[in-house]
Amino acid sequence: MKPKIKDVAKQAGVSTTTVSRVLNGEKYVKDDLKAKVQRVIDELGYSPSHIARSLVRQKTNLIGIIVPDLTSSFYATILSSVEQTASQAGYFLLVCDIHEDTGKELKYLNIFKEMRVEGIVIMHEKLDDEIRAFLDKLDIPVIFSSVRPADQKFMSVIIDDYSAAYDATCYLIGLGHERIAFIGGDMRDVTSGQSRYAGYRKALEDNNIPIEDDYIRFGDYKPQSGYERMKELLASRVRPTAVFAVSDDMAAGAMNCINDHLLSVPDDISVIGFDGSQLTELVRPRLSSMEQPIEEMGKVTVLSLIDFMTQQQTGFKKDLILKHRLVVRDSCRPVVKQQET
Amino acid sequence: MKPKIKDVAKQAGVSTTTVSRVLNGEKYVKDDLKAKVQRVIDELGYSPSHIARSLVRQKTNLIGIIVPDLTSSFYATILSSVEQTASQAGYFLLVCDIHEDTGKELKYLNIFKEMRVEGIVIMHEKLDDEIRAFLDKLDIPVIFSSVRPADQKFMSVIIDDYSAAYDATCYLIGLGHERIAFIGGDMRDVTSGQSRYAGYRKALEDNNIPIEDDYIRFGDYKPQSGYERMKELLASRVRPTAVFAVSDDMAAGAMNCINDHLLSVPDDISVIGFDGSQLTELVRPRLSSMEQPIEEMGKVTVLSLIDFMTQQQTGFKKDLILKHRLVVRDSCRPVVKQQET
Repeated sequence: MKPKIKDVAKQAGVSTTTVSRVLNGEKYVKDDLKAKVQRVIDELGYSPSHIARSLVRQKTNLIGIIVPDLTSSFYATILSSVEQTASQAGYFLLVCDIHEDTGKELKYLNIFKEMRVEGIVIMHEKLDDEIRAFLDKLDIPVIFSSVRPADQKFMSVIIDDYSAAYDATCYLIGLGHERIAFIGGDMRDVTSGQSRYAGYRKALEDNNIPIEDDYIRFGDYKPQSGYERMKELLASRVRPTAVFAVSDDMAAGAMNCINDHLLSVPDDISVIGFDGSQLTELVRPRLSSMEQPIEEMGKVTVLSLIDFMTQQQTGFKKDLILKHRLVVRDSCRPVVKQQET
Repeated sequence: MKPKIKDVAKQAGVSTTTVSRVLNGEKYVKDDLKAKVQRVIDELGYSPSHIARSLVRQKTNLIGIIVPDLTSSFYATILSSVEQTASQAGYFLLVCDIHEDTGKELKYLNIFKEMRVEGIVIMHEKLDDEIRAFLDKLDIPVIFSSVRPADQKFMSVIIDDYSAAYDATCYLIGLGHERIAFIGGDMRDVTSGQSRYAGYRKALEDNNIPIEDDYIRFGDYKPQSGYERMKELLASRVRPTAVFAVSDDMAAGAMNCINDHLLSVPDDISVIGFDGSQLTELVRPRLSSMEQPIEEMGKVTVLSLIDFMTQQQTGFKKDLILKHRLVVRDSCRPVVKQQET
């Protein structure tokens, strides 16, 4: 038989209310009484039911989290940071990897609500109408991390993706490149799709470099799509001298494609990535990348969410913009001007 | 005001017990009554409290999972598969990334117990005495995945790590290599540390190749340690012609080190990894590797665990051994015999 709260109360010679107060860490219990009750709890090996306690306290200490794809190094790293910060603050994560499936996202959001999670983190921005309607009515604090869907009342923790893409492109232009190809993301994504693409275009425009549709391709952020899009780019009438890919995974795929075509990075083609994932140090040449502060993003996400949870707010107007940073490694070099004598 | 179960019952003209039966999907409710109650639930936007229902049904549908390090591609992939299988079966994951900290593991195991998880998956095998004592007394089904700690009453879903390491080494021997270096794991780990090391040694012995202590190094499974250990190996009196690293991450680090020393893989040194992670296809040359069926492992783990949960068993004698598979890519070649005329 498992010991019950009654057994603890009896053996400690106190009421069950007092035991309950000790368990909940309330302040009205004197230290010596607290110690006595705790001793009996330890002796009997009493483990309070979290479920029963949750009902009383209306606190579950659960945070629900929606991740698009755990096998991506970017999301795995940010989740690791989210988990660490949450557990330090006494919260536990319910994790849902939706594998880019919005149907699954809606199902999980419903479950999060039913399980009375105290807050929700969403790292996915392809919201359909049903999800939007659900979020509109939701009375649980939500925070978006690394993404900012259009028209949301909820706060996002992000970098300025437009400026980051602008800066990455300007870096290549500064090295003398003019034939700069672009491997973009999913254009249904505002943050990582549209914003980065707009930043790339604006940088070319501001530097009076004509935009060549032939140099613009879109992938799904994964290595294989970087490889495939690069293959198409290599078949261009005039080969680009530089490529900007909006994820490190796609940049690594592009580098492999260049390599497999017996061309060299950066001697023949410069490549710059986006994210600053572990991969940048693993590939050869090391990949220059526009870095997001991934760990900080995870940390700030959880701390902000807990703030909202404590204040019982649900809607917020201001986003939190973290700083991006260009990290130069070995995959880019100044352009070699040909036949310009 | 949120609608309560009473409100649903009143509007549908039934008892709260009937509403509760509909919510729990019980069989005693007629279809037309079920439809009627469901309609009222939808109209009122009633969301039952999972907490309250859990108390009644003694079911939380939670599975707790201990992951050593989410930023490792191996664990991220297996977790992704675990999550997918669990969610298909109607279970949700409480995820704890312990960052190789056994103190955190014990704390989380206690929380899992308190939250009445129905099953626990552990992917970490450095159990200290406190954790062992905790598991000994635990009355919740536990399953180990990808690891098998010594003396456990719980089942493991693993490959035969000893044979897999033996086979990887024999593959290099079959290519004519005799100076085969080994970058092992943490020797406190039975599965990925001791078993793989023993397999390497046995393969050399069986082929009458002397074991050179100078060729044996141990890392922490991560790329950087593969790089550092390889640096030491390159300083050996006589350079090895092949290296077997017990994780793909370490093998990739070793390849980079060889590359940075202006040597070539596989022309100067052959490299073989272990795990079959995504990295094998991303690095150049592509990494040959002893592959674990990572996704299958995640799936079988959850299905077995749910089996135990359903049968309310907690201890099991037999491990489930999945098949390993050598995947040959481009990082190994036959040894070039020198000065043997």
